[in-house]
Amino acid sequence: MIRFDLLSAVPDLLHSPLNHSIIKIAREKGYAQTEVHNLRDYSADKHKKVDDYPFGGGAGMVLTPQPVFDCHDALAAQHRYDEVIFMTPDAPVFTQADANRLSLKSNIMILCGHYKGVDQRIRDEIITAEYSIGDYVLSGGELPALVVVDAVVRLIPGVIGDAESALSDSFMDDLLDAPQYTRPAEFRGLEVPEVLRSGDHKKIREWRKRLSEEKTKSIRPDLYDIYLNNQ
Amino acid sequence: MIRFDLLSAVPDLLHSPLNHSIIKIAREKGYAQTEVHNLRDYSADKHKKVDDYPFGGGAGMVLTPQPVFDCHDALAAQHRYDEVIFMTPDAPVFTQADANRLSLKSNIMILCGHYKGVDQRIRDEIITAEYSIGDYVLSGGELPALVVVDAVVRLIPGVIGDAESALSDSFMDDLLDAPQYTRPAEFRGLEVPEVLRSGDHKKIREWRKRLSEEKTKSIRPDLYDIYLNNQ
Repeated sequence: MIRFDLLSAVPDLLHSPLNHSIIKIAREKGYAQTEVHNLRDYSADKHKKVDDYPFGGGAGMVLTPQPVFDCHDALAAQHRYDEVIFMTPDAPVFTQADANRLSLKSNIMILCGHYKGVDQRIRDEIITAEYSIGDYVLSGGELPALVVVDAVVRLIPGVIGDAESALSDSFMDDLLDAPQYTRPAEFRGLEVPEVLRSGDHKKIREWRKRLSEEKTKSIRPDLYDIYLNNQ
Repeated sequence: MIRFDLLSAVPDLLHSPLNHSIIKIAREKGYAQTEVHNLRDYSADKHKKVDDYPFGGGAGMVLTPQPVFDCHDALAAQHRYDEVIFMTPDAPVFTQADANRLSLKSNIMILCGHYKGVDQRIRDEIITAEYSIGDYVLSGGELPALVVVDAVVRLIPGVIGDAESALSDSFMDDLLDAPQYTRPAEFRGLEVPEVLRSGDHKKIREWRKRLSEEKTKSIRPDLYDIYLNNQ
């Protein structure tokens, strides 16, 4: 069982992905717990403000320390957190290896980033790990936090119906998946490759490996180099 | 005005991010339109099935061609799409440059991936661009599609209050943001750096540039090399 506490200034954004996805399945099966915390509920400001202008000037609002420290402290008094994660573009990029590592933890707190960022004192004092989900800028850290939760919960044994499915995914062996086909065998004149219908499992394995290698080499030469080095 | 059509087998997952974020703001201001299409509504199967077992064996279900082709064709009869995007881990990684490019388009269709993938004939015949949002596996393409929509709409002039904010983001100049601080100047004994309170804008600019460079060099040496090459 992994418990996730998500801290956000726009908690309503998180609702439907937490309740219509693998995350809901993991929760219903008892493998995960997700709790959403509205930073505004912790604001000592009379208008429940959670952000303010940056010192030194510049555009955009910055998440202020007080609500985050107070929310963090209230939760940390109840649970012992293995990681307190901050989602932000100026951080190392999250990878499958991080998802694998986090899937072995018990209590994870995730602070969703905000507009131009958060006060650095939050990052210095509270945060234990920072991740970006990729080299692009988003309007907040809520989607990135959901990405991390999704990537992690699906690795917990029992969450996905067949464990083999998670193990045979892209990245699990440094190669991208081979092309997949399903019924019908012919659709609008387009046919499924003969080999996949042959029933010859050795040939199918070889075909898939060859196409995985070709595809990885073509669109992700960086991954292909890692794959070659690991052979 | 950019129109996004999102095709999904779990459309309910998309609801709250589309309605509590920058995406909603862009829609309300008339800069973007988002339409969600349930692939099950297009299934010719009597049980409204949209997936089936893969040819050649293996774990996981594969999205079948018929509902996707029919949904695509119905939409393409009404709008001329600049891009038909498929979100999948086995594709080039989405970057800020892709977001910039897509922000100039008018009609974008996004097919959200599914379990072990989609029938390759869909990718061969309908899809014009494929993106992964990063090197990790998720349970579906819905969060990745929302990431793309968020990254794109915030670039449309007028969507973010101050245009300068989008321009000064991480990645816009190949450097990560400098640390940000907001009020109070002292919180739990932790002080905001003196320079940011000095009012000396030249010094502040220099301090921020130096810290941006140091941070980028330390946690993203790959980006720092690009930055140096562009000087």
